[in-house]
Amino acid sequence: MGGHEIEQLIRLLGRLPGFGPRSARRIALFLLRDPQARLVPLARALERAGDAVKTCSTCGNLDTVDPCHICTDPLRDPSVVCVVETVGDLWALERAGVHRGVYQVLGGTLSPLAGIGPEDLNISPLLERLEQGSVREVILALGATVEGATTMHWLMDKLAFYEGVTVSRVAQGMPVGGALDVLDDGTLAAALGARRPA
Amino acid sequence: MGGHEIEQLIRLLGRLPGFGPRSARRIALFLLRDPQARLVPLARALERAGDAVKTCSTCGNLDTVDPCHICTDPLRDPSVVCVVETVGDLWALERAGVHRGVYQVLGGTLSPLAGIGPEDLNISPLLERLEQGSVREVILALGATVEGATTMHWLMDKLAFYEGVTVSRVAQGMPVGGALDVLDDGTLAAALGARRPA
Ligand SMILES: [Zn+2]
Ligand SMILES: [Zn+2]
Repeated sequence: MGGHEIEQLIRLLGRLPGFGPRSARRIALFLLRDPQARLVPLARALERAGDAVKTCSTCGNLDTVDPCHICTDPLRDPSVVCVVETVGDLWALERAGVHRGVYQVLGGTLSPLAGIGPEDLNISPLLERLEQGSVREVILALGATVEGATTMHWLMDKLAFYEGVTVSRVAQGMPVGGALDVLDDGTLAAALGARRPA
Repeated sequence: MGGHEIEQLIRLLGRLPGFGPRSARRIALFLLRDPQARLVPLARALERAGDAVKTCSTCGNLDTVDPCHICTDPLRDPSVVCVVETVGDLWALERAGVHRGVYQVLGGTLSPLAGIGPEDLNISPLLERLEQGSVREVILALGATVEGATTMHWLMDKLAFYEGVTVSRVAQGMPVGGALDVLDDGTLAAALGARRPA
């Protein structure tokens, strides 16, 4: 519809998560109806964010600096590490403002069906920090899903190796089957506040 | 969250129709997790589409050429003009493949509440075509909304001036209160096929 360049834009928009052909066309039309005010600023923002984005080599967060703002924040407690599945989960906890320590982003969960094994999870920076003796508590904030539970038990086995480290997990307030980053701030605060030893 | 450039991208994504802060963050994270494979091609496609897009000065369609592919297609009948509200409606009719004439895109509907008057609608290219005597039928394919009906009656008054021009309107199959571009192809075909004099 409407020339190769427009079709190609619609095709790429249709690959975004949650998009179908209809929403891709709707967004393309919205942008193309007023390119200077809508499309150009978005293209520029994408380019700039793409140039600037870095994965934090310490925690796995996405930021424009490495290590990320959280890892280098002197007001945060680096001895309390909250383990989350995704950067989206980390951002959800940050928006809620309920965690004053640092993070470890696994980048997923163990999932034999999807072929995701321990070697696919970003866990070694956490193990390094544990070996350096700089961590006193690890909070497991994984989703209340089968994969989240599997991953949590695997992590608990690994973490049991480090003496003097408290391992806790968020529990109360997490709806069963729920993902972390769709919870409201109050639920996140309750789940984190009522954490218990794993 | 995560640096100025990333925040700016999330802000702009959040202004897209149907987007909220949550979906903006989800799409931003999806793109930023793999910039080379996801973000860069989309940024490039936006840029190219933005450079290439033109509004057809004859019908109001968005295309990469002016006049558009439809207006210059020798296999189409330029004497049958289908009037639609938006480019999205035009594209919906094209996907359904039910109209072999040409189009006139109004760019909206009359809406006193929204301050949209006759001077805001793209109607003069159609009037020019009518004055040249090259049009024998005008099909009104406006949405079955209050604004669509208002616009249709205003158009019928204007078109009554041109003798020898049949004015018809799509009718059967349009759900009341429905917009044109969410209809399935079969409904569109039925609505167009069963058009009757306005
Ligand atoms: Zn970090
Ligand atoms: Zn045209």
